[in-house]
Amino acid sequence: MTLPYWLPDAVFYQIFPDRFANGDPDNDPPNVALWGSQPTIWNFMGGDLRGILQHLDYLLDLGVNALYFNPIFHATSNHRYNTTDYYRIDPKLGTLADFHALLETCHANGIRVILDGVFNHTGRGFFAFNDILENGEHSPYKDWYLIHRFPVQAYGEGKAEDYEAWWGFRSLPKLNTTNPQVREFIFDVARYWLKQGIDGWRLDVPNEIDDDAFWQEFRHVVKTANPDACLVGEIWTADARWVQHFDGLMHYPLREAILGFVEGSLAAPAFASRLQEFLTLYGEHARGMYLPLGSHDTERLMTVLGGDEEKVRLALGLQFAYPGAPAVYYGDEIGLEGGKDPDNRRAFPWDEAQWRQGVRTWVQRLIAVRKRIPALRRGDFRLVEAKDGRQCVAFGRVLGAEAVLVVANASSVKRHCHLPVAALGWEDGRIVHDLLGHGEGVVAGDTLHWDILPRQVVWLA
Amino acid sequence: MTLPYWLPDAVFYQIFPDRFANGDPDNDPPNVALWGSQPTIWNFMGGDLRGILQHLDYLLDLGVNALYFNPIFHATSNHRYNTTDYYRIDPKLGTLADFHALLETCHANGIRVILDGVFNHTGRGFFAFNDILENGEHSPYKDWYLIHRFPVQAYGEGKAEDYEAWWGFRSLPKLNTTNPQVREFIFDVARYWLKQGIDGWRLDVPNEIDDDAFWQEFRHVVKTANPDACLVGEIWTADARWVQHFDGLMHYPLREAILGFVEGSLAAPAFASRLQEFLTLYGEHARGMYLPLGSHDTERLMTVLGGDEEKVRLALGLQFAYPGAPAVYYGDEIGLEGGKDPDNRRAFPWDEAQWRQGVRTWVQRLIAVRKRIPALRRGDFRLVEAKDGRQCVAFGRVLGAEAVLVVANASSVKRHCHLPVAALGWEDGRIVHDLLGHGEGVVAGDTLHWDILPRQVVWLA
Repeated sequence: MTLPYWLPDAVFYQIFPDRFANGDPDNDPPNVALWGSQPTIWNFMGGDLRGILQHLDYLLDLGVNALYFNPIFHATSNHRYNTTDYYRIDPKLGTLADFHALLETCHANGIRVILDGVFNHTGRGFFAFNDILENGEHSPYKDWYLIHRFPVQAYGEGKAEDYEAWWGFRSLPKLNTTNPQVREFIFDVARYWLKQGIDGWRLDVPNEIDDDAFWQEFRHVVKTANPDACLVGEIWTADARWVQHFDGLMHYPLREAILGFVEGSLAAPAFASRLQEFLTLYGEHARGMYLPLGSHDTERLMTVLGGDEEKVRLALGLQFAYPGAPAVYYGDEIGLEGGKDPDNRRAFPWDEAQWRQGVRTWVQRLIAVRKRIPALRRGDFRLVEAKDGRQCVAFGRVLGAEAVLVVANASSVKRHCHLPVAALGWEDGRIVHDLLGHGEGVVAGDTLHWDILPRQVVWLA
Repeated sequence: MTLPYWLPDAVFYQIFPDRFANGDPDNDPPNVALWGSQPTIWNFMGGDLRGILQHLDYLLDLGVNALYFNPIFHATSNHRYNTTDYYRIDPKLGTLADFHALLETCHANGIRVILDGVFNHTGRGFFAFNDILENGEHSPYKDWYLIHRFPVQAYGEGKAEDYEAWWGFRSLPKLNTTNPQVREFIFDVARYWLKQGIDGWRLDVPNEIDDDAFWQEFRHVVKTANPDACLVGEIWTADARWVQHFDGLMHYPLREAILGFVEGSLAAPAFASRLQEFLTLYGEHARGMYLPLGSHDTERLMTVLGGDEEKVRLALGLQFAYPGAPAVYYGDEIGLEGGKDPDNRRAFPWDEAQWRQGVRTWVQRLIAVRKRIPALRRGDFRLVEAKDGRQCVAFGRVLGAEAVLVVANASSVKRHCHLPVAALGWEDGRIVHDLLGHGEGVVAGDTLHWDILPRQVVWLA
């Protein structure tokens, strides 16, 4: 198995389509909420595909080269995980022509696009489920779901009782993916959008389809349609089972580790162990991992870290130095705050006065340096130091003769580090600089002495 | 207002798509019923677009030159009047490619195709109604319907109470066609399928959209997209209001009159009056009327007429001689029987041993003669005789120097008719033949003496 060639070099930007930018007010729903309103489970704010297209300059300026969109297919909710029609762009987001315009412009500017594949369950408006509501046991589609009894009560209060549903939600009936017709339907959808030009799929809750044969076939379908397409699985645990099917996973365990280290709940040695364990666990797939510090399913980075910009920068400096494809959840790069769902889905504030410019400049720099230095993307990971009680970690990324030494201080005091750098190929007298700042140091013997400020992260080379 | 140039020359054939022919078993629903099973409100028999395509030779041999399909868009029922998706061919019928193949082949063979436009109501699976079920009063589409209260109870027993529905059926929520967005949606659908190549729309229950401005705009949209497209309204009463919007109406009142005359419940003078009244009522639109003797909404012709093939032939002989576009409901031409819905939607029996060949040969001849003689299609209607107590009617179709004299005897005895033919331009000594049979006669003075058998109809020229 080979990773898509572009994946280890990717920097993702995740867009929740209703909330990034409103490029075409004509497709807004009539009850559209004011841009920047408090998000609710009901409201739409008018974000759309044209909005993304119009702000592609912003994304290119930031430096990302891959976009992951939360679902864009026709659905009734603002998150669109309850798919109504897998073959139609939600009209509130635009048309197929808009999507093609966006794809084409992204590709012309070196940006790849992956979509959210929600195949475990559908919305109640999906034709096959609706057919069951209409026809009951006479429905030709009754075996497309896991129905316990007819007639099916799909609306009203309480958990789903008459059929299997995601977490028991009546609104999300689970597809019967053991049915060959359902499999074929899903594979056709996957193929169709690849043929439209997308660069891969992010698979929603794939572990709910607990069927290796299904995912094996899914992978085959996707890679046959486009050998360079990437597959990213939404797997919340560290579990090597899934990299037989997907190029990468959404690496929430890494997020937990980084946030734990930054906040002080995870000591340096334990943090370093986690960093190494993940790499051992995923092997060659480590560089295909999708690395988020936040998403539509978590509190926002700035909020988790209590609004502390230094901590945010520290977390980002670790994220972008780790093997895999770092991902920025829209707005996190300007320090947008947001608690749990739906508050983490606020409208992107295009008024720059509301941006925390320090965060954005930092993200820009991380991306730029990462793009410039192959070792940061494709180098081996070498743990250098993680002593107990100091809340400092140092690791190298080494590619041939090139090496970057990452040093991070999560403590609230300045630390003086003695870093053994022979394993990086650095010899006595070598002068190193912080790629992210202005510091400079000299290797003495096989050791680099480096003073690191509280909450600071440096990338030395 | 001008009729589509081809409409007065059209002979329609109405196809109930699930029941005409199964050309592609691959798209059958898994619970497909055996071809020829007793129709139920639930069952599908596998008829599809490829089936029609494969039997186009049969239709060309019959002689029809226009097809009207009951709904073919995605829907959950076998009649498909509860539309789920106006932009998708029902996958049980085939694909858009199949539809294009069918359209193209029809056009290449001089056959026009009109579709069933069901715009008064939708199915519950239509995205906007589903959105209301999902989002309640937060739905962006809540004004697409006429909702009385939230939450909307759309499933379960009884009439619709929370919203307006066609005849109170919960399964058929009525669209709010006063909403400009709904209007635009409907107009877009109408335009889309015209652009795909269809030759017109048959409008389902248009009187339920009691709004002349709506239909005026609808007509404008259609005629702008294709000036030659035809519009046929399903209007059950004789009502001139609707020909301001439609080229023709489904002429059920004519059907009633013909069947009444044939069965003896309508005396000849009253029948003749009806024939003339309709023409006066509809004026230039008379030649644009869609003339059915049966449809998916009536008992079948053969069944209504008690299985009496002579009566069937008599009725057909009158239908095909009247101004307008005669229409054959699939299977009626082979004497297929069928009571009320759903029995009138039986599968077409392709085993010729089951055909009443006499009926089919008769329909073929009526079509062939009608095609050959312009007066039958485009001539004026002139009542010649309709004396009380004799159950005989005679009328002419006159176009310039050409005339056809139609004589029909609905009684059970042979009648000797003295027919005044001067108004047809027929002079003393003219020899006339029955275009449908072998009889011959001579005009004596200004009268034609003609003996007509019980239940016989002749077309003399």
